[in-house]
Amino acid sequence: MKILIINGPNLNLLGVREPEIYGNLTLQSIEQSVRLEFEKQAEIIFFQSNSEGEIVDKIQDSLKMNVNAIVINAGAYTHTSIAIPDALSGVKIPFIEVHISNTFAREEFRHHSYLSSKATAVIAGLGAHGYSAAVQYFIQKLREKNV
Amino acid sequence: MKILIINGPNLNLLGVREPEIYGNLTLQSIEQSVRLEFEKQAEIIFFQSNSEGEIVDKIQDSLKMNVNAIVINAGAYTHTSIAIPDALSGVKIPFIEVHISNTFAREEFRHHSYLSSKATAVIAGLGAHGYSAAVQYFIQKLREKNV
Amino acid sequence: MKILIINGPNLNLLGVREPEIYGNLTLQSIEQSVRLEFEKQAEIIFFQSNSEGEIVDKIQDSLKMNVNAIVINAGAYTHTSIAIPDALSGVKIPFIEVHISNTFAREEFRHHSYLSSKATAVIAGLGAHGYSAAVQYFIQKLREKNV
Amino acid sequence: MKILIINGPNLNLLGVREPEIYGNLTLQSIEQSVRLEFEKQAEIIFFQSNSEGEIVDKIQDSLKMNVNAIVINAGAYTHTSIAIPDALSGVKIPFIEVHISNTFAREEFRHHSYLSSKATAVIAGLGAHGYSAAVQYFIQKLREKNV
Amino acid sequence: MKILIINGPNLNLLGVREPEIYGNLTLQSIEQSVRLEFEKQAEIIFFQSNSEGEIVDKIQDSLKMNVNAIVINAGAYTHTSIAIPDALSGVKIPFIEVHISNTFAREEFRHHSYLSSKATAVIAGLGAHGYSAAVQYFIQKLREKNV
Amino acid sequence: MKILIINGPNLNLLGVREPEIYGNLTLQSIEQSVRLEFEKQAEIIFFQSNSEGEIVDKIQDSLKMNVNAIVINAGAYTHTSIAIPDALSGVKIPFIEVHISNTFAREEFRHHSYLSSKATAVIAGLGAHGYSAAVQYFIQKLREKNV
Amino acid sequence: MKILIINGPNLNLLGVREPEIYGNLTLQSIEQSVRLEFEKQAEIIFFQSNSEGEIVDKIQDSLKMNVNAIVINAGAYTHTSIAIPDALSGVKIPFIEVHISNTFAREEFRHHSYLSSKATAVIAGLGAHGYSAAVQYFIQKLREKNV
Amino acid sequence: MKILIINGPNLNLLGVREPEIYGNLTLQSIEQSVRLEFEKQAEIIFFQSNSEGEIVDKIQDSLKMNVNAIVINAGAYTHTSIAIPDALSGVKIPFIEVHISNTFAREEFRHHSYLSSKATAVIAGLGAHGYSAAVQYFIQKLREKNV
Amino acid sequence: MKILIINGPNLNLLGVREPEIYGNLTLQSIEQSVRLEFEKQAEIIFFQSNSEGEIVDKIQDSLKMNVNAIVINAGAYTHTSIAIPDALSGVKIPFIEVHISNTFAREEFRHHSYLSSKATAVIAGLGAHGYSAAVQYFIQKLREKNV
Amino acid sequence: MKILIINGPNLNLLGVREPEIYGNLTLQSIEQSVRLEFEKQAEIIFFQSNSEGEIVDKIQDSLKMNVNAIVINAGAYTHTSIAIPDALSGVKIPFIEVHISNTFAREEFRHHSYLSSKATAVIAGLGAHGYSAAVQYFIQKLREKNV
Amino acid sequence: MKILIINGPNLNLLGVREPEIYGNLTLQSIEQSVRLEFEKQAEIIFFQSNSEGEIVDKIQDSLKMNVNAIVINAGAYTHTSIAIPDALSGVKIPFIEVHISNTFAREEFRHHSYLSSKATAVIAGLGAHGYSAAVQYFIQKLREKNV
Amino acid sequence: MKILIINGPNLNLLGVREPEIYGNLTLQSIEQSVRLEFEKQAEIIFFQSNSEGEIVDKIQDSLKMNVNAIVINAGAYTHTSIAIPDALSGVKIPFIEVHISNTFAREEFRHHSYLSSKATAVIAGLGAHGYSAAVQYFIQKLREKNV
Repeated sequence: MKILIINGPNLNLLGVREPEIYGNLTLQSIEQSVRLEFEKQAEIIFFQSNSEGEIVDKIQDSLKMNVNAIVINAGAYTHTSIAIPDALSGVKIPFIEVHISNTFAREEFRHHSYLSSKATAVIAGLGAHGYSAAVQYFIQKLREKNV
Repeated sequence: MKILIINGPNLNLLGVREPEIYGNLTLQSIEQSVRLEFEKQAEIIFFQSNSEGEIVDKIQDSLKMNVNAIVINAGAYTHTSIAIPDALSGVKIPFIEVHISNTFAREEFRHHSYLSSKATAVIAGLGAHGYSAAVQYFIQKLREKNV
Repeated sequence: MKILIINGPNLNLLGVREPEIYGNLTLQSIEQSVRLEFEKQAEIIFFQSNSEGEIVDKIQDSLKMNVNAIVINAGAYTHTSIAIPDALSGVKIPFIEVHISNTFAREEFRHHSYLSSKATAVIAGLGAHGYSAAVQYFIQKLREKNV
Repeated sequence: MKILIINGPNLNLLGVREPEIYGNLTLQSIEQSVRLEFEKQAEIIFFQSNSEGEIVDKIQDSLKMNVNAIVINAGAYTHTSIAIPDALSGVKIPFIEVHISNTFAREEFRHHSYLSSKATAVIAGLGAHGYSAAVQYFIQKLREKNV
Repeated sequence: MKILIINGPNLNLLGVREPEIYGNLTLQSIEQSVRLEFEKQAEIIFFQSNSEGEIVDKIQDSLKMNVNAIVINAGAYTHTSIAIPDALSGVKIPFIEVHISNTFAREEFRHHSYLSSKATAVIAGLGAHGYSAAVQYFIQKLREKNV
Repeated sequence: MKILIINGPNLNLLGVREPEIYGNLTLQSIEQSVRLEFEKQAEIIFFQSNSEGEIVDKIQDSLKMNVNAIVINAGAYTHTSIAIPDALSGVKIPFIEVHISNTFAREEFRHHSYLSSKATAVIAGLGAHGYSAAVQYFIQKLREKNV
Repeated sequence: MKILIINGPNLNLLGVREPEIYGNLTLQSIEQSVRLEFEKQAEIIFFQSNSEGEIVDKIQDSLKMNVNAIVINAGAYTHTSIAIPDALSGVKIPFIEVHISNTFAREEFRHHSYLSSKATAVIAGLGAHGYSAAVQYFIQKLREKNV
Repeated sequence: MKILIINGPNLNLLGVREPEIYGNLTLQSIEQSVRLEFEKQAEIIFFQSNSEGEIVDKIQDSLKMNVNAIVINAGAYTHTSIAIPDALSGVKIPFIEVHISNTFAREEFRHHSYLSSKATAVIAGLGAHGYSAAVQYFIQKLREKNV
Repeated sequence: MKILIINGPNLNLLGVREPEIYGNLTLQSIEQSVRLEFEKQAEIIFFQSNSEGEIVDKIQDSLKMNVNAIVINAGAYTHTSIAIPDALSGVKIPFIEVHISNTFAREEFRHHSYLSSKATAVIAGLGAHGYSAAVQYFIQKLREKNV
Repeated sequence: MKILIINGPNLNLLGVREPEIYGNLTLQSIEQSVRLEFEKQAEIIFFQSNSEGEIVDKIQDSLKMNVNAIVINAGAYTHTSIAIPDALSGVKIPFIEVHISNTFAREEFRHHSYLSSKATAVIAGLGAHGYSAAVQYFIQKLREKNV
Repeated sequence: MKILIINGPNLNLLGVREPEIYGNLTLQSIEQSVRLEFEKQAEIIFFQSNSEGEIVDKIQDSLKMNVNAIVINAGAYTHTSIAIPDALSGVKIPFIEVHISNTFAREEFRHHSYLSSKATAVIAGLGAHGYSAAVQYFIQKLREKNV
Repeated sequence: MKILIINGPNLNLLGVREPEIYGNLTLQSIEQSVRLEFEKQAEIIFFQSNSEGEIVDKIQDSLKMNVNAIVINAGAYTHTSIAIPDALSGVKIPFIEVHISNTFAREEFRHHSYLSSKATAVIAGLGAHGYSAAVQYFIQKLREKNV
């Protein structure tokens, strides 16, 4: 079982950027702890990019990589990119939209997401736990299918 | 540790009402499995009502009940009630907003929530897992504080 | 054949409240005349409540009551309640939306109904005749099916 | 007693056009059955045109024809014509707006009607029964006045 | 002379809930001081409920109670209820809309009130003094009429 | 010098239709008095139709008729027709938009005109004098050019 | 018979300011020619100010001056002032709104006027002739009344 | 203790202008009765102007005048002036917004106020009593502080 | 194979009307060249009318005429007519929407089309080539089906 | 003669992604057939990228490449990119906007294009034929100029 | 070379009013330092008024004063006045719009300016440096022209 | 002291692209002259990219580069990118938004900037001088702090 976790622009600043909103964990430490948590259940692949085009490329690649599910925190591209949800529709891999902060408690323009209507689920505000909750959900679902 | 899980209108129809959207689990079976999952960690109290006023009453009661956190799936009142988020602000107990279906993939009028901007987090589309994820988050957070 | 007629808030004031808009008939006299008109064809059950929650409860009850069709004049809740149409979707009983006055000739906020898009039909402005027309329609339709 | 029933554009396609929305009855068969139903109570005149101008002309003519009431299904002109409601205001004959399908359950642009605010009543979704219900209402009202 | 003072949802939390917005007075102490202030001039009846339906019921009851005027702080229902202003229109008793805090200095959704356009007056931000000012106005007006 | 005066739908009802808005003059009497007023200065041609298409036809004809200027009261088509201003742009004859009533003091949907932005001038509310004022303006302008 | 003609901000620049929009006539020459045209029929008083407050003052003064009718070109205040139409409502003197250019063919923000809904008539785009047409209308109307 | 009461445009017409909306009292009589009512408690200064600029000037002057609180009925400037609330923010003197009529029951454009969000309180519809209620509130508050 | 090409209002002015927008070709010359281009492949029928009703009639007639596909340039009716797309839906013949000019580079109100959402394709700005491209597409598609 | 055909994000998935919307052809096969069709008339250059920046770069390069015309299917960037139309304006090379599917029959957010207002033409829904039609148009136009 | 610097309402409070937004400099000290900075290059004239009308008057005067360029900080009138930009268009003197604070980081209603679309440039947030930057720009530009 | 000047998409076309809007200077010549102007005061670093992702990368790099202030002309990304202002917030380096042309005098969609609300200042329309003015401001501010 293979799960791809995509992080969009500025998420590489985690632990540095606005800790009062995003907390003190770096993306590396989140990656480590998620991997650890699920190491017996699934192969977890982390990818981060500040470029919309590279994220689209990666989503397209996931077909060849035989990814079973995608967890995506598209950062600012959540609100401005149609190319990213189009790529997700194109590869037809189920995905969950995750946000570290509760985007609905922030600026108006962060309340709309081009991803949500196509996502399996949306998780916002659980901090780094959001990634775990999403991965756990997919593992459980994929197991149920395989049974 | 005490966690109150509030379910709003028509959630008593779970397992009956539109299973293609809400799945086959009844509210009773969800309650049982959530209780079981966390029985050693927290007291879980379930409450369901079709009445906005009764939900407000219950939230106010949670002060006397010494509830540490609230998980709320306000159903249709998510989109039409200001009294419920006002009650939650009034009692100052942290809460997570949960929806069984992905409300962002449904009718336009289900995309706005009066609760979201005051919630700790929002989880939509994880099915019954949403309740677990929310409870787990609160238990972890409350533990961290107590350490 | 069983038809449930639900009346929402302030419809118990009929004959008292603003007769220039709603006419002089009381809800009781309407109930009597509708019952009389259809007494050989169907069991007609009237229900009135000022509470959104109680109306939701009643709609849910109609499953156990083996109601074949619902005629609903949700009064002010027509424009503010999502819980009521959700209940109607939940029980999957066909319903017609009735208004005594022509709501489209009144304040702007009475022009939108959360019920309409899920209703079989909408009748507004026929006065008490609206209930009869709706009942008659259902009786005819149910007969056609049974033939 | 004389009642004019006006049908707007494409209603001559009834029974042909999109039967899943409009049913299988032709306009002719509806005309026949409505005439038959009320033949002892009122003279029923049917008129259909695809032209906005001709419908305006007909409404103006109804003054000379001594029409007591108008039942109008303006089809697509319901949503785009101001000339038709202006004509109805001009001749000061009471009218009921009828739609075969439930327009509120269809495209957004069919939710607004320039006729509704001036109509006695609005009936949508009762199929061909809508015409009968409207005629019946006018006959009853006109009788009450004459008594 | 009888004046009914209605308080809506969460106003029973006064003195507890967000004192930086609503002040430290409880609803009981406000009731006492208002009663005292006007004890020789009018019978003051206080009513509080978290339920929209119960508030509608109470307004309807005020007819039988021979209430001369109503002072209403509908709390959150100010912004979401049409049933409450409909009840007030139904009983035709003059009313003043009162808010303890200045609702216009708070969230956007608190700027619109379904009550205002039918109220005699609107008072927002005077704290508990708002109730007194409203009662005083009605006493003065009712006196002028009786002279 | 030739001036074409076009009147749109329902203006043939003038003197009949809603005299409290449009006054008691018939279109014929207005035609007569306008002709009389300018008989030595210009040939005045009146045209009325309830059909959008016929008005477009007439405007196109005005090229062959050598019309110098057009005065148009498009009635309800003012607010719903783009074909009419397109025809006016097509023939490149200057025109003035006239309304008998002050359309800006009436329903919201009468405040917008597709004609105004292409018109030389707009006159609303001068009653039948509006036609005269428009004709007078064109005669004066055309004279100035010829001098 | 006394008619007050009010000109708002920047109309003193007429003949100077943007002649391609406003023409070459100065306000003085317009005043002269209007006076001359009607000198036997009415006393014409011209007033110009760049100040909203002074225009309000003048309108209030017109009561004492026994003005029968007002012609107002409020310039930019047409679109931004509520105080001016309030003053006109206060003195209850009929008025016509005049614009030299066709404001509907200019920037979007010039399409809305706070004056129009209270005016007897609106004339835009007739150049200096607009004033004459307005004065002429009032003289005719006032005469009709006096007969 | 010094309280400045500012009245905006057209309030000098009180008693003259639209008495069905504003009542029969003149501004002078209101001034007298308010002064009388509070003569032992505070110095009351009345100011009226039809000019936005003069009102701004006066508010700025209140600093030098040692005004403790301002009661302002800005009339039409309530809805169109940002300069006036800016001046009030500049001088940092608490103020209450008063309207004689219930502005929320009037035209749509009177429902928005640039003052409200910065005001201590808003009172609309209490007639001349509104000024008294505002003054009384400030006296009470200022006393509480001094104790 | 039969293809009907419908042209709406003012397209008979082609070559005359605003050549800087629409070019110098007349509708006749376009008809000729399109016929010539496809004379061996399909019967091409041209129809033009300034009347919405006549266009609806023609579309309905195409059923009896055994038309395989429709190319429609509805001119101004593109933006104002619902009756025309309703007729096209009624006859269930595939159609392509063509505009000679690029409507998206013109006035805002030309950016929305009631036809587009039901069309097979939309072509705007190719001038007279647009008709050819549409016909060619249909011929190719119909051939593929027949193979 | 040189024509550059630019394809935006996810168009490299053609033939793979959602064939019910985009058909079964791959971008390579489209490229081949377009090249073949016009091989004697023009040099056709295909470019595809998932990156907004790279597309901007390519458009800028087209100046040095002496490209005569551009055909662009910007995919999702059609609706979100201003940088791409800015680049096209910068290089001043005429371009046609092409979409394989009829974007106007899809989600609301695909109805607006930042490219359209600057394009020579817009073609949507002709499938792969759209590219041919656009190239053909440019070849014809460029020839006409050269003649 | 003559440059007029206009300051609108409440800018005379600079140094007094909300120093956290506007800084501690008074308008006098800014005037002095700007004069000093450019004393060899241009005559700098400062003007401040709280009255919209007086600002319009001043702009009109600048024609007679032979002003070469205007720097304007219209304060609150930036967002509410059309008369001021109309005056600037009337006199045809180039102007730069300056704001001391960054208006785009403040209330929504300060984001729109009626001046911007006609200004040479807009500078917001540079504090008192904004005036210098604007003056410097004009001096440089005027010099270039004179060379 | 180190100042980073970032230029977004198409600004590398300066001097080439639309000189009537952007002037004749190339980005290189601007860079040279800005460097020269401030060479003794600060190290000026120029960066240009057509890619949103690369600009985000650069902003993140500025932390390591010890940049004191950023001047950014984000070109088209000003209006479409949230990732860029998020990066600027992330690194917490003060920045000024610069535009060569007056964006407020151009298309509607250029009036909104996602950068403005977080910027220290906004300068639009000063041409290449905008960069100088911004740099000068930062140098002055940074000096003041160091003193």
